[in-house]
Amino acid sequence: MRQAGRYMEDYRKLRAQFSFLDLCKRPDLATEITVTPVERLGVDAAILFADILLVLEPMGVGLEYAKSDGPKIHRPVRTGVDVDRLVDFNPQEELSYVFDAVRKICAALNGKVPLIGFAGAPFTLASYLIEGGGSRDYRHTKQLIYSDRGAWHALMERLARLLASYLNGQIAAGAQVVQLFDSWVGCMAPEDYRDYVFPYTRLTIASITPGIPVIHFSTGTAGLLKLLREAGGNVIGIDWRVNLDQAWQKIGYDVGIQGNLDPVALYAPSPEIRRRVENILRRAAGRPGHIFNLGHGVLPETPVEHVIEMVRAVHELSMR
Amino acid sequence: MRQAGRYMEDYRKLRAQFSFLDLCKRPDLATEITVTPVERLGVDAAILFADILLVLEPMGVGLEYAKSDGPKIHRPVRTGVDVDRLVDFNPQEELSYVFDAVRKICAALNGKVPLIGFAGAPFTLASYLIEGGGSRDYRHTKQLIYSDRGAWHALMERLARLLASYLNGQIAAGAQVVQLFDSWVGCMAPEDYRDYVFPYTRLTIASITPGIPVIHFSTGTAGLLKLLREAGGNVIGIDWRVNLDQAWQKIGYDVGIQGNLDPVALYAPSPEIRRRVENILRRAAGRPGHIFNLGHGVLPETPVEHVIEMVRAVHELSMR
Repeated sequence: MRQAGRYMEDYRKLRAQFSFLDLCKRPDLATEITVTPVERLGVDAAILFADILLVLEPMGVGLEYAKSDGPKIHRPVRTGVDVDRLVDFNPQEELSYVFDAVRKICAALNGKVPLIGFAGAPFTLASYLIEGGGSRDYRHTKQLIYSDRGAWHALMERLARLLASYLNGQIAAGAQVVQLFDSWVGCMAPEDYRDYVFPYTRLTIASITPGIPVIHFSTGTAGLLKLLREAGGNVIGIDWRVNLDQAWQKIGYDVGIQGNLDPVALYAPSPEIRRRVENILRRAAGRPGHIFNLGHGVLPETPVEHVIEMVRAVHELSMR
Repeated sequence: MRQAGRYMEDYRKLRAQFSFLDLCKRPDLATEITVTPVERLGVDAAILFADILLVLEPMGVGLEYAKSDGPKIHRPVRTGVDVDRLVDFNPQEELSYVFDAVRKICAALNGKVPLIGFAGAPFTLASYLIEGGGSRDYRHTKQLIYSDRGAWHALMERLARLLASYLNGQIAAGAQVVQLFDSWVGCMAPEDYRDYVFPYTRLTIASITPGIPVIHFSTGTAGLLKLLREAGGNVIGIDWRVNLDQAWQKIGYDVGIQGNLDPVALYAPSPEIRRRVENILRRAAGRPGHIFNLGHGVLPETPVEHVIEMVRAVHELSMR
């Protein structure tokens, strides 16, 4: 998660020369940023360098990646009229720069490791559109659900169809796995998830090119695990707030599981990192279908050496 | 939760005249602020007007309630030396203004409803001391655990003893129930909770005057419920991110449960609020020992009328 990012000097150098959007939109740069950490860290898969909000840009909502504050949507969607006003576009055309990057990355990786494509899930994208950025309480998102259910369902269905098309474009361009990031869905009560999120996550996943494994990721969802699994995905991502063995038991062993190291643990000294890796591997109990990963993205000031040591520990300890 | 607060005009008027610390430190004002919402809302219990960080002020860390930004600790605790430097004080003396308020409030309530006293739990207070305020990732808190376990244990033990003494002072002054707020402990992995938090929450709760019911509150802890229950409390508070019936089954029916309405739901129109109240009551299935409450504090712009309607709905629907 966030293999490339501010914690890497190579990335910071590029970021000083180019805007974040330029890095995403220029396939040569996106390729360099995707491939470099794979070599540097020794990981078993590459993840596309892109951002979950790129799909919102052609909708005409005024997406901006502000320097310090995180992403901003200048014209947030708060009513049914706002939903109707969203620009319809063909992702195969408007987001073709992502597919170009995928093709270039696959060529550069040359089959050494697979490439994971990705998109935000409908709820998480809707929450950005509605809140206009990050949020602590997702008040506006929930208010749209309470006040105009029709508008909510219309927005979520549009997003689901758009995201499936976008992911299928990445797959057609060469991505061998896709990950759906429902990063903020942990703010929802289980019944609200079932009524207002589940149908659209399921629609998205069900519309993905058959045969391509799907990783269904979220955080803060220890109370939603069964519903997440029902919504779909060959692999369910979990964060660190739940024990891996208990989560897997709840989800069922017929799907894989991804996680569950606390990203903050990478600030710890190496023996502590190794101890924590060992703990997680012990909980996975040698079952097939565990993808070792952090529970969320690498944090900005993480020492690169610690990430490398984590990868090494996973490789060494899982060989035993 | 947060019965008195910015969502109430009476409170905003007082807040315009006095600083937040003055409101806490003047027993006449704290009494007025505690008692007014009980009458206005028609709730079945009063909760002391105070703040979980008041106990940190005599420690000499530079506590400030900044106007917009939330509370700040100007000299955060980051090392063992910082822990040793914390000022030792007698809560029975330095926090006597809280006990004076409790006495005044009990006299004003005159037995009509019970008064709930409260304190922050050791982890949540430690996180404020170490981070210097709120945090998204609790990085410094976890780093202290990784880098100087001895300092962490020393800090948590001090806090546990302080908090027990503080709560017992509130009880001696008349509080009939106490609530321990571990608001941010949901950031911890279950094993880290067990090793670094559990012993101190248990110590705090075990040191509370026998016979006084303890409500053990937290948020974002769907993956920690069993451990929270083992740490103690006659009632376990849950937020809205877990179904009440499933949480209660996990926790065990030999303890009570508090919750679990999403505070954002109070922005919804009244029929929707009523539907959600009914849902929660249905999940409680008429068992004794359910305290209806929000899963976290009332949000700033909540319409007071909606809170009143929620209370009315709880009373009406639970009579059936």
